[in-house]
Amino acid sequence: MKRIVILGSTGSIGASTLDVVSKFQDRFQVVGLTACTNDTILEDQIRTFHPTVVALSSPDAAQRLRARVDTTQVEVLEGESGLCEVARVPECDLVISAIVGGAGLKPTLAAIQAGTQVALANKEPMVMAGHLMKQEAKKHGVTIFPIDSEHSAIFQSMEGHRKEDIRRIVLTASGGPFWDWPATDFERITLEQALQHPNWKMGAKITIDSATLMNKGLEVIEARWLFDLPVAQIDVVIHRESIIHSLVEYCDGSVISQLGHPDMRTPISYAMNYPERIPLLPPLLDLGKIGTLTFAPPDTEKFPCLQLAYDALAGEAGLPATLNAANEVAVHAFLNNQIAFLDIPNIIQETMAAYHPAPLSTIDEVLEIDQWARRTAEEIMKTCMTPV
Amino acid sequence: MKRIVILGSTGSIGASTLDVVSKFQDRFQVVGLTACTNDTILEDQIRTFHPTVVALSSPDAAQRLRARVDTTQVEVLEGESGLCEVARVPECDLVISAIVGGAGLKPTLAAIQAGTQVALANKEPMVMAGHLMKQEAKKHGVTIFPIDSEHSAIFQSMEGHRKEDIRRIVLTASGGPFWDWPATDFERITLEQALQHPNWKMGAKITIDSATLMNKGLEVIEARWLFDLPVAQIDVVIHRESIIHSLVEYCDGSVISQLGHPDMRTPISYAMNYPERIPLLPPLLDLGKIGTLTFAPPDTEKFPCLQLAYDALAGEAGLPATLNAANEVAVHAFLNNQIAFLDIPNIIQETMAAYHPAPLSTIDEVLEIDQWARRTAEEIMKTCMTPV
Repeated sequence: MKRIVILGSTGSIGASTLDVVSKFQDRFQVVGLTACTNDTILEDQIRTFHPTVVALSSPDAAQRLRARVDTTQVEVLEGESGLCEVARVPECDLVISAIVGGAGLKPTLAAIQAGTQVALANKEPMVMAGHLMKQEAKKHGVTIFPIDSEHSAIFQSMEGHRKEDIRRIVLTASGGPFWDWPATDFERITLEQALQHPNWKMGAKITIDSATLMNKGLEVIEARWLFDLPVAQIDVVIHRESIIHSLVEYCDGSVISQLGHPDMRTPISYAMNYPERIPLLPPLLDLGKIGTLTFAPPDTEKFPCLQLAYDALAGEAGLPATLNAANEVAVHAFLNNQIAFLDIPNIIQETMAAYHPAPLSTIDEVLEIDQWARRTAEEIMKTCMTPV
Repeated sequence: MKRIVILGSTGSIGASTLDVVSKFQDRFQVVGLTACTNDTILEDQIRTFHPTVVALSSPDAAQRLRARVDTTQVEVLEGESGLCEVARVPECDLVISAIVGGAGLKPTLAAIQAGTQVALANKEPMVMAGHLMKQEAKKHGVTIFPIDSEHSAIFQSMEGHRKEDIRRIVLTASGGPFWDWPATDFERITLEQALQHPNWKMGAKITIDSATLMNKGLEVIEARWLFDLPVAQIDVVIHRESIIHSLVEYCDGSVISQLGHPDMRTPISYAMNYPERIPLLPPLLDLGKIGTLTFAPPDTEKFPCLQLAYDALAGEAGLPATLNAANEVAVHAFLNNQIAFLDIPNIIQETMAAYHPAPLSTIDEVLEIDQWARRTAEEIMKTCMTPV
């Protein structure tokens, strides 16, 4: 019986994780759950999975929840400290880190510092502070299992092969809903259109990141730290069908890849059961029926966010955290219909341009840059905002 | 320094193996070579790689060779016994088994019984006597590393993953030169057309086997024994571009596959260096440039040989050896312009229909079936022969 905590249990990854748990109840026991504000879904999850402790970021939501559940059965914590407390409960074998954005940094770090294995869906902490996260993981003997489909594919394609033989890794990208659109139509992109991902059903933030290709940029940075590979060995290829989830090319010409239907339960369950697999038995991957898989080089002119991520990795150490913070601010504004789609890369680029090298050897210093970049992006947003 | 013997050094796989050796002379030492009749190429190879012992199947060819090389430097053996003697030289770490057809059975077995690791390109022995070959390998502590690109892909896609989690394996097939032809044109297929493989440069026999899809059938049987999987877990998909070399589907929905340019040096070098890889550094596999990979279900009506192989595996234990022998006879006749392309499956089918269950617990019994099937196929060929 593996005891798990899910950070961000009411989101898309959280729901998929609990779906896996419910199908394999003999294997998993949920000991802790956290959410941001959604006390309603969290209440349902408490009644189904009986965790011993939960936390909500929002104190108001926590208060509402306490009023409705039996607090002798489940402890309800609140705020960032509450999330961190759930992340470090000692009677836990694996923390599923599935919070959206930089908000996941401290709770994920808490799990690592408690020496608990981590399955990571929340890529932003690795983007902001990958070097420090890996350092902490090493110090506490923690393995970070990727849940992102691309990084799980890379991880699976490295298993059984020697790291020193790797020539490069190639992350596949669906290209999102606007890949085939002429650049001239980009200024007319609506929020509704941007929320329609062709292959994956995901949360709103990552869906917008997929539409701008920033998601792939964040994944490049995540891969750089997760697999400890120089950026020159990390490439991207557009693959519209999202069947090949990523590839690892070795020095002898062999390329190992992981494929599958776009279903997050596969990478989630791999991280949860490693090195075993559980019989989810989805429909067979019938390539004969699928017929065609297509590939194209990425277009960083039409999708500047991907290039910005490469630039961030190549530049000052604080730039990835700057890029991430500016992107979170811009995407949040886009989701609130405050800015246009094309403003997103502009805000990020201008925030990065405003960055001055700062010390970056502690998590607190990363969080300072994060806060500075959020303030700066907000300021820039005011001036460049396109009426929508 | 790994000491190697190449059985069938003057063929296509032999040449590719020696190409790898010549590029990595600090890693490999050639101690033995064998060929069928080609004393001219073998002489060149002796002068370049300085083996201590060689053998030719043909005593005449061996005599010619002895007259031209310094026999104090290299011992020149002859006949099947000579090949077997080279296969079991004690100062050898790896035997590359690359003879064409059933003729490779005894020499490959000799290597296994001598306890030497084997890299297997010669699939027919596994088709004829896979069960017994694996039994001998187990008894003598020998690992059989596949060299066939498909089986190497399966092997590589199983490394690092648990065998009990495998749901099925999928062998990819290029479809050969006639995949897109209407069935009505098959009676007009010429030898020259059949020898034009779209993707791979290979020997004549395997090229014809690829055109009839018998090659894939033989590979299904080989995979059944090599990986000890029931036939129900072995599928085939047509993949015209020969970039994905095969796939392994796991119970959680993950599919692991190996891809690469069609270049036999990659699987050969993997078998030679396992678990390491050597920097052959071929051009990067640029999927963005390749653009499209296509897949289709196999068509066993137009290509009955594939179905015959499945039938052989599902039926009496001697049927795979029967199928293989009849196929060798028919392909040999086709290569000599004695029969038409469409006669090949007919001869095999009729030979299989004539098979009566026989004991099959020793290699000699397999060889008896092989001999019976060759005679029977020759007889059938006389009656069904289409004038060409």
